[in-house]
Amino acid sequence: MLAIFDDAAVLGHALAFEMALAAAEAAEGLISAAAADAISHACAAAQALDTRDLAARAAQAGTLAIPLVQSLRAALPPEVAPALHRGATSQDVADCVLMRQVQAADALLQIDLGRVVTALGRLAARYAETPAIGRTLLQDALPIGFGLRFAQAAVGIDEAKTRLAADVQSFARLQFGGAAGTRAGLDGRGAAVAARLAATLGLGDAAPWQARRVGPAAIGTSLGLVIGALGKCARDIALLAQNGVGEAQEPRIPGRGGSSAMAHKRNPTGCQVALSAALRAPGLVANLLAGLPQEWERGLGGWQAEGPVLADLCLLASGSAAALAVVTEGLEVEEGAIARNLATAGLGSDIGESAALTAQLLASLGKN
Amino acid sequence: MLAIFDDAAVLGHALAFEMALAAAEAAEGLISAAAADAISHACAAAQALDTRDLAARAAQAGTLAIPLVQSLRAALPPEVAPALHRGATSQDVADCVLMRQVQAADALLQIDLGRVVTALGRLAARYAETPAIGRTLLQDALPIGFGLRFAQAAVGIDEAKTRLAADVQSFARLQFGGAAGTRAGLDGRGAAVAARLAATLGLGDAAPWQARRVGPAAIGTSLGLVIGALGKCARDIALLAQNGVGEAQEPRIPGRGGSSAMAHKRNPTGCQVALSAALRAPGLVANLLAGLPQEWERGLGGWQAEGPVLADLCLLASGSAAALAVVTEGLEVEEGAIARNLATAGLGSDIGESAALTAQLLASLGKN
Amino acid sequence: MLAIFDDAAVLGHALAFEMALAAAEAAEGLISAAAADAISHACAAAQALDTRDLAARAAQAGTLAIPLVQSLRAALPPEVAPALHRGATSQDVADCVLMRQVQAADALLQIDLGRVVTALGRLAARYAETPAIGRTLLQDALPIGFGLRFAQAAVGIDEAKTRLAADVQSFARLQFGGAAGTRAGLDGRGAAVAARLAATLGLGDAAPWQARRVGPAAIGTSLGLVIGALGKCARDIALLAQNGVGEAQEPRIPGRGGSSAMAHKRNPTGCQVALSAALRAPGLVANLLAGLPQEWERGLGGWQAEGPVLADLCLLASGSAAALAVVTEGLEVEEGAIARNLATAGLGSDIGESAALTAQLLASLGKN
Amino acid sequence: MLAIFDDAAVLGHALAFEMALAAAEAAEGLISAAAADAISHACAAAQALDTRDLAARAAQAGTLAIPLVQSLRAALPPEVAPALHRGATSQDVADCVLMRQVQAADALLQIDLGRVVTALGRLAARYAETPAIGRTLLQDALPIGFGLRFAQAAVGIDEAKTRLAADVQSFARLQFGGAAGTRAGLDGRGAAVAARLAATLGLGDAAPWQARRVGPAAIGTSLGLVIGALGKCARDIALLAQNGVGEAQEPRIPGRGGSSAMAHKRNPTGCQVALSAALRAPGLVANLLAGLPQEWERGLGGWQAEGPVLADLCLLASGSAAALAVVTEGLEVEEGAIARNLATAGLGSDIGESAALTAQLLASLGKN
Repeated sequence: MLAIFDDAAVLGHALAFEMALAAAEAAEGLISAAAADAISHACAAAQALDTRDLAARAAQAGTLAIPLVQSLRAALPPEVAPALHRGATSQDVADCVLMRQVQAADALLQIDLGRVVTALGRLAARYAETPAIGRTLLQDALPIGFGLRFAQAAVGIDEAKTRLAADVQSFARLQFGGAAGTRAGLDGRGAAVAARLAATLGLGDAAPWQARRVGPAAIGTSLGLVIGALGKCARDIALLAQNGVGEAQEPRIPGRGGSSAMAHKRNPTGCQVALSAALRAPGLVANLLAGLPQEWERGLGGWQAEGPVLADLCLLASGSAAALAVVTEGLEVEEGAIARNLATAGLGSDIGESAALTAQLLASLGKN
Repeated sequence: MLAIFDDAAVLGHALAFEMALAAAEAAEGLISAAAADAISHACAAAQALDTRDLAARAAQAGTLAIPLVQSLRAALPPEVAPALHRGATSQDVADCVLMRQVQAADALLQIDLGRVVTALGRLAARYAETPAIGRTLLQDALPIGFGLRFAQAAVGIDEAKTRLAADVQSFARLQFGGAAGTRAGLDGRGAAVAARLAATLGLGDAAPWQARRVGPAAIGTSLGLVIGALGKCARDIALLAQNGVGEAQEPRIPGRGGSSAMAHKRNPTGCQVALSAALRAPGLVANLLAGLPQEWERGLGGWQAEGPVLADLCLLASGSAAALAVVTEGLEVEEGAIARNLATAGLGSDIGESAALTAQLLASLGKN
Repeated sequence: MLAIFDDAAVLGHALAFEMALAAAEAAEGLISAAAADAISHACAAAQALDTRDLAARAAQAGTLAIPLVQSLRAALPPEVAPALHRGATSQDVADCVLMRQVQAADALLQIDLGRVVTALGRLAARYAETPAIGRTLLQDALPIGFGLRFAQAAVGIDEAKTRLAADVQSFARLQFGGAAGTRAGLDGRGAAVAARLAATLGLGDAAPWQARRVGPAAIGTSLGLVIGALGKCARDIALLAQNGVGEAQEPRIPGRGGSSAMAHKRNPTGCQVALSAALRAPGLVANLLAGLPQEWERGLGGWQAEGPVLADLCLLASGSAAALAVVTEGLEVEEGAIARNLATAGLGSDIGESAALTAQLLASLGKN
Repeated sequence: MLAIFDDAAVLGHALAFEMALAAAEAAEGLISAAAADAISHACAAAQALDTRDLAARAAQAGTLAIPLVQSLRAALPPEVAPALHRGATSQDVADCVLMRQVQAADALLQIDLGRVVTALGRLAARYAETPAIGRTLLQDALPIGFGLRFAQAAVGIDEAKTRLAADVQSFARLQFGGAAGTRAGLDGRGAAVAARLAATLGLGDAAPWQARRVGPAAIGTSLGLVIGALGKCARDIALLAQNGVGEAQEPRIPGRGGSSAMAHKRNPTGCQVALSAALRAPGLVANLLAGLPQEWERGLGGWQAEGPVLADLCLLASGSAAALAVVTEGLEVEEGAIARNLATAGLGSDIGESAALTAQLLASLGKN
């Protein structure tokens, strides 16, 4: 996930944009095929640019596209230089880069989230009929099937996972509007160029949305739901692992969960990663929503704040999902403790319709 | 919208829940038809309860259902009293009440949002080909069609509006799980009771979700997107109404937009309402996301925080939509100022593919 | 606390502002003594105005001062009417009202917070040398003095409490700037009028700050810290009260902590109130910070969002402090469970320098 | 500022902690002087450790101290190894590292903030008596002295700057508590060791606060106020730079403020940096507040979330302050436009007590 958001990936996506744009414009007769070829070569060569130097110049210019286009134009024959980046603006590049990163992040996340859901589903099925004390408001309540809790967690994560995939599908779309979002300077071929560009980049074709940020914000809210749903599962497991409860433990993993001061400890480190992410996500989502009221055709400060926030959300979601995949796949369930705690509660062992509910919940996975 | 969330509405929904539950349980043979009748009468009579007294007792008990069930049981014959609230718990009542409020709020909101989208669509179509200066980063950029900006705003609001409706449709669902979410104590008829209860209340039938809060949080994020998309429109209009710009003005409305100190002023008060809401929504959404990692079968503090936050979001969305409906329906466009500012910019009047993009955006309304 | 923020209180403070302003301006020779008298009488009579009607007109006008000044002027002889509200603007009234409410809220809060700190201090001293298992990352760690945890909680709350008092002292100050914050129209007597007005209202004298909102935001952050520090204490107690831990319980209070479905339960309802508040505060504080970049001499949307948010923070802080005062003053400590859990942990009973640290922490109370 | 928070800095501070701890413990007779020497040499040599490898192992272990202490112990003679890190725990290291970083960040920030305040003060003084139109709710209001706005901005930033310095002074303090915060295993010399350690590290001496996080959260709120106060100034300047207003412009700087599509543009890029930071800070502060209710002696997920959030806040504050220092030091004021806009407003040129208020505000700088 770090690789998806590192400087090299950004550079790669930005060059892919310029190449695809040139190819699309050549196909529509806006620039010559030779110019498109020259641009393609210059972009290929530019993969080797020093990303640290570029990043410094981008920070100074306020956007990556400015120094990148400068560098590329300097490497092109003077008569070809104007053909580069024709009809595009910095934000077109930045948004397309970000949306491709979001697509890649989602693809990775779906895998790890799928692992968690599957592992939880397996736990739910296995312990669907195991009576355990249920707890509300942190107090013993009435018995439940031990598996029901995992089924609930699986469905929560699945609901958020499905939503994220749908949002990425809907909103990871082409941004191509040029200076003021009108596709000016393209001899009326803007829509055709956009369609080609979208197809090459693997983004949905769309009208420009440079100051209409519902899409990125929606993706961010879904990431927030994913991280929160994972956090719910982590909270439950961390509480189950308490010494006075002891109904489940994270798997033992060398180098994990130790303490620099206490050799006897077995810390719920995987849950910690997920809970830490769940603390950070809400504020990040708030930032995306706060940026929605952007000024006119391109906001001042608003969209520039989105990229790092979406990247943080993806990284947190990924870290959380990966940690919980390990935790749930190797969870050590202590049936003795479950039985002991149930007996201590003294509230019988009628688990109501737990098993049927567990089955109902598991049947809904993938359909939320 | 205030009426949807006032104490009388809460009481009404809570009583409807108890009545519907008794009827469902009578139909499933869990309680007698006579008991259901008695409960129905007691609930009808209880509409007259003093909501202030109930609210005080609810604050003390931590939930409304406790004093309400007490009051109702006291009014029932002793042999019928146990039939009331059978298999239910406080949160079942609270969540169903909240979801019915959310449904009602959404119904109201869809109307006001529809008004805004329609009004913006009309402005967009009317001025689709009117050249105006486009502005990025708060600076003159290149010409655009004056209507394109409204088309963008309309689509942003429409995207959020559609999402909200879909989320309410998916997640405004029955919560009925009893003490520990297992539907215990219902002789295995829990699923059947739930189906009847859901149908009577007009909520989606569903497995219990008392500690799986992705649903309410998702609805909250959609409200946040709605408020933010409205805020974008308000920001644009407020900036257009500046003295140095003057391209549009809020309609003159007696009692609105004046100043207690300056008679000459015409303040963008409708935009102010929308922008103020847009400042408040992100933090409220963050609160909902922060509550996701709830403990075990019923969280301590988490779900209790949701109700007032969702209510605030609905009220803010409603206030914003109503204010912007008035603003957009009566917006005074100053074509002279538009032409003057365009000429001053000295950047020609080529609006690129603005008109086609406006048409494309307008064609997407209702399909986002 | 509700009374501090209700409509009657707002009206009372607003009328006090207009009266004090007239008196100050009469003392400075800007209006006649007779006019000030007439205004004083009109304001006294206006205490009886229908607050609901006023609120509706204020919502329409965008601010309370507009309809209030209208009503008052209508009640004054025509020649006196212009003397009312001279040199003032709506926000002057609104901000002074809010700052007086904040002062009153702080006074109330300091009392409840003091109760919590005192009760925690007593618990800390009493159990300073009682060996108990300490827990980190939700796992048994090493023994601590049972009282040390309460000493830590007391100091955290005390640090936040002191900070809040200091912020209210610094920032609950007069706002009096007139239409554009220049104190125009006062014949150069603005500073003198301000000094008198501040003294009468009991607010700090200060230059206008109508678009410089560091003060209210700072107060909000301190409220956020108070609520968070109370939440820390509530979290600890709720975890101690778990069935598998059982080292402390909230006091039994009739009508509290019951369950509508489970008679055996004893829910940590006081902790629930505090934890629910702690979930809601961060987003509210974020809203205040988001409002800081206000436009020019008076923001559009920003300052209008502050009032309800500060009120919510005060109400949450007050509810949390009151609930925890009851919890900590009546906390039932189970020494048997403490000893049992310590023995089960098998990590000895060396509490290190717990007692000295407890003493050091307690000695710092009131000096943070 | 990036260097303050990079991996090498973290490693350096962590090694400094271990060295200082060994020296303090040797001075108190807990370990031998020879052991302290050996530790000192091992730490010096460890500056060369591969930070990427360490970071990977730290991610796995959940904290940096675990792999670092392992590496150091492996490099020490077996009989000395136990003397390393004696009585300390991972969080002691992590918190002390973070507090030293915060001190360094504050030192840097005070300089850049001082530059901004000074530059604004100069602008305020220079234009204190220049009549300009004042604007409220984005509409012309009444005339003000053009300098008054800068005086207000200067004071807002100064208030936040002073608060930040005070918070760092109060709360950048030693964390040294060992495994459970009791300073166990130090033969009763814990307080003495702590005092020496604090002195060497340049941190305030203090009782442990590993689960009492009011301090870091308070520092975070002050950073949020700093960023918001800078954002207010940026908002004003960006609005002044609009084409229809034109009263001030950011200085021309090669490589800044251009557009990849429009050669004529002069974007307020410095303001953009500050406004983007102001959008991101509120959510980050919310995260810190959300983490306050930490569990027992060391929270699970809460404190682990603080480090990156505080680092982000410092980086955003620093970027914003540096950008605005350049903007305010080189601000180009257009007196012609000021006069023109004032005349167009037709509201005279009485600036009330603007000049006196400007002087009063400037006199308060450094005393807030």
